[in-house]
Amino acid sequence: MAQKPSIPKGTRDFNPEQVAKRNYIFNTIRGQFERFGFQPIETPSFENSETLMGKYGDEGDRLIFKILNSGDYLNPNKGAISDADYGDRDSKKLSKFISEKALRYDLTVPFARYVVQHQNEIEFPFKRYQIQPVWRADRPQKGRFREFYQCDADVVGSRSLWQEVEFVQLYDAVFSALKLEGVTIKINNRKILSGIAEVIGAQDKLIDFTVALDKLDKIGEEKVKEEMLDIGISQSEIEKLQPLFNLSGSFESQIESLKTILSSSEEGKKGIEELEFIDKGISELALQTAKLELDVTLARGLNYYTGAIYEVAAPKNVKMGSIGGGGRYDDLTGIFGLKDVSGVGISFGLDRIYLVLEELDLFPKTITNTVEALFINFGDTEALFCLKAVKALRNNNVSAELYPNSAKMKKQMNYANKRHIPFVILVGESEVNLNTYTLKNMTSGEQQSLSLEQLIAALK
Amino acid sequence: MAQKPSIPKGTRDFNPEQVAKRNYIFNTIRGQFERFGFQPIETPSFENSETLMGKYGDEGDRLIFKILNSGDYLNPNKGAISDADYGDRDSKKLSKFISEKALRYDLTVPFARYVVQHQNEIEFPFKRYQIQPVWRADRPQKGRFREFYQCDADVVGSRSLWQEVEFVQLYDAVFSALKLEGVTIKINNRKILSGIAEVIGAQDKLIDFTVALDKLDKIGEEKVKEEMLDIGISQSEIEKLQPLFNLSGSFESQIESLKTILSSSEEGKKGIEELEFIDKGISELALQTAKLELDVTLARGLNYYTGAIYEVAAPKNVKMGSIGGGGRYDDLTGIFGLKDVSGVGISFGLDRIYLVLEELDLFPKTITNTVEALFINFGDTEALFCLKAVKALRNNNVSAELYPNSAKMKKQMNYANKRHIPFVILVGESEVNLNTYTLKNMTSGEQQSLSLEQLIAALK
Repeated sequence: MAQKPSIPKGTRDFNPEQVAKRNYIFNTIRGQFERFGFQPIETPSFENSETLMGKYGDEGDRLIFKILNSGDYLNPNKGAISDADYGDRDSKKLSKFISEKALRYDLTVPFARYVVQHQNEIEFPFKRYQIQPVWRADRPQKGRFREFYQCDADVVGSRSLWQEVEFVQLYDAVFSALKLEGVTIKINNRKILSGIAEVIGAQDKLIDFTVALDKLDKIGEEKVKEEMLDIGISQSEIEKLQPLFNLSGSFESQIESLKTILSSSEEGKKGIEELEFIDKGISELALQTAKLELDVTLARGLNYYTGAIYEVAAPKNVKMGSIGGGGRYDDLTGIFGLKDVSGVGISFGLDRIYLVLEELDLFPKTITNTVEALFINFGDTEALFCLKAVKALRNNNVSAELYPNSAKMKKQMNYANKRHIPFVILVGESEVNLNTYTLKNMTSGEQQSLSLEQLIAALK
Repeated sequence: MAQKPSIPKGTRDFNPEQVAKRNYIFNTIRGQFERFGFQPIETPSFENSETLMGKYGDEGDRLIFKILNSGDYLNPNKGAISDADYGDRDSKKLSKFISEKALRYDLTVPFARYVVQHQNEIEFPFKRYQIQPVWRADRPQKGRFREFYQCDADVVGSRSLWQEVEFVQLYDAVFSALKLEGVTIKINNRKILSGIAEVIGAQDKLIDFTVALDKLDKIGEEKVKEEMLDIGISQSEIEKLQPLFNLSGSFESQIESLKTILSSSEEGKKGIEELEFIDKGISELALQTAKLELDVTLARGLNYYTGAIYEVAAPKNVKMGSIGGGGRYDDLTGIFGLKDVSGVGISFGLDRIYLVLEELDLFPKTITNTVEALFINFGDTEALFCLKAVKALRNNNVSAELYPNSAKMKKQMNYANKRHIPFVILVGESEVNLNTYTLKNMTSGEQQSLSLEQLIAALK
């Protein structure tokens, strides 16, 4: 292979600095998940195709990465592809014969599968978190990758609204711990959206209606109304929605307007009740740095939400899509045959959070994990002397290493500089004879002659 | 889907306890890697097929999981499959047309690819570690999975033997930190094996010869000799090997015997020199709990080793294959066009280490991450009162949760028991009025009435 090697489009290599920064985010999220009582599970990277196919719509099916069966997968004695089927040369048809496994597309469906498969070992309500990569054959673009991590926390097995309260607190706790202050946690309720559709007599157009409403921020009131006309909602019905477009002000004042708009819809009133419960809880408990905002235009794409819907926006001064989202789904495990298990959960978007922390310069300076002390190598006798100190330092939890070769001093110092190693230790013949170590602070340039004990104390 | 869902054979779900135990091992390994100055990188789960194919022999090629191209992959306008090629109905041929990506088979080849691709950003010698899953379409059996983690540390860009010394120390440090005492780090050198083959005139049969020698432990001296005859090594040549079969005793005494056996081989003598250097270094630096043993029958399967070869055996009282292995390879990046970059590295076998720690009961009792305190839910008023304490505890780094529903007391206590939650807090109407919390120690059964400050102090 003469050409420089490369990686598949939409995938990434991560260098040590990037891994350290990503782990900082993962560890912060994980720490808060555990403080909130969530427990980790992990599922396989690939699932049986029938577990995933048909769960994400046609578009999803298309974007799922399929794994080719092993061995002689075309051999008619093994598979079951008839000459006629094979001869059709139809990708979609052939895939069923030659592929029976597929890469995980999200963490929610595998979690539902896990709950059903292990229902007898699980204590409900089950609070689980999961931080693993997922894969989608999407067209790669800025901030969108074919391999990326999801960080999900869900509770299944309880309809209590305290959990909706808790997830707002969890978002606040994670972003506060990341020092990312001023995020907005937007909340809505699927029942509000259904109620509005009901009031204007557009229940049968609920999806199209919410898709149009969702665009209010981007395209404005007039365009949204045009779209609604296009999907067959009448002018008079749209007029009934006018108060919705004028909705603004505090959570409480918006709730009051909704009560008027939705007075004739039982489902709508239920949605209002739920929102009020959450708002009251959060007001009493107070958030650290985030704020909670009602956004009745918030719909999110996924149709399995049945109650609360969340979405988190980065602080106002950063241009970035949502950095988190989630909601309540009343029958997720139903697809695998276990009925009436309600769930609610949220997700954190690692890649976007990374970009926001980078843009606002919020990564702690201490996390780029370089080694703390480099011993310069002046030859085998000195090297062995140094390695005794290296061992003692490591036993004292100080990361340390010896430059492996007795290369030119300049080369070794250069290596220390390029790797941003803060301390260098020089041991030549005279140090060996005197049993001392010369410690050089690479920032100040200061040098000290120290005993092993003093060296350990200085670096610890 | 009426049937209970399942996962592909050879893959696993991990429940919270298993994840906690696995993370304990990962974190211990990672901690030592970083103390030794290794830096983490991560590479994509799938690589371009040409990066992986042909790097692991025919058997490897067969075991690599291939990913089906997305979209209408059979469409002749997109791909380049002629009717004739398609009509051949040959799996191997078709794969090249319909699959261009494959799942990572190990961490070494992707690392070599990384080094070549990013050579201008890397400071050499480059000490990297990588802890990620790999996939192999192997026949699943006890302890062998189709998805499993590898934990690798390698240095590239230096031929210094101090690194070989350091990797022995690293094995010792990791297993000592895991409290797995008494492991044996077996070492050999590819040059010793070549030297022996040279001495008996079997250079051209080096691979077959080392495969036979490698079996000495399992099948015994006589059978090994028979195999050697079978592969065409003459009786008189085998007699020259007799001292090899009688090799025993200390590292040093074995070295002395090898000096006699290999006196006529320059390469063999070089191997002896290298082993002596490592042995001397380790004797001076002393290991914590492991011991270093010379094993001239150690060959390991991989042909890219050119110097030291390592393998780690579990303590004698545990029946288990090797729990680690590695060695020196002088030209790994050559396959991607970058010549003369020597590397040396070791790997830890997560699944086997897990089984050994389980068998010897060496997992710390504290690592099963359950929540520390559960608040019993007696209704919404009490729940809100409790949630203020939950929030205060979490801010003090104590994991805590409220049972989401005001279910029957027995059900809630049952949940606490099943999850092994150590403390339960009971807050009824009277506690709310008195502004107190009743703390119950689930082990002793003891109950105390506490203020919020006292509660935090008690659980911190």
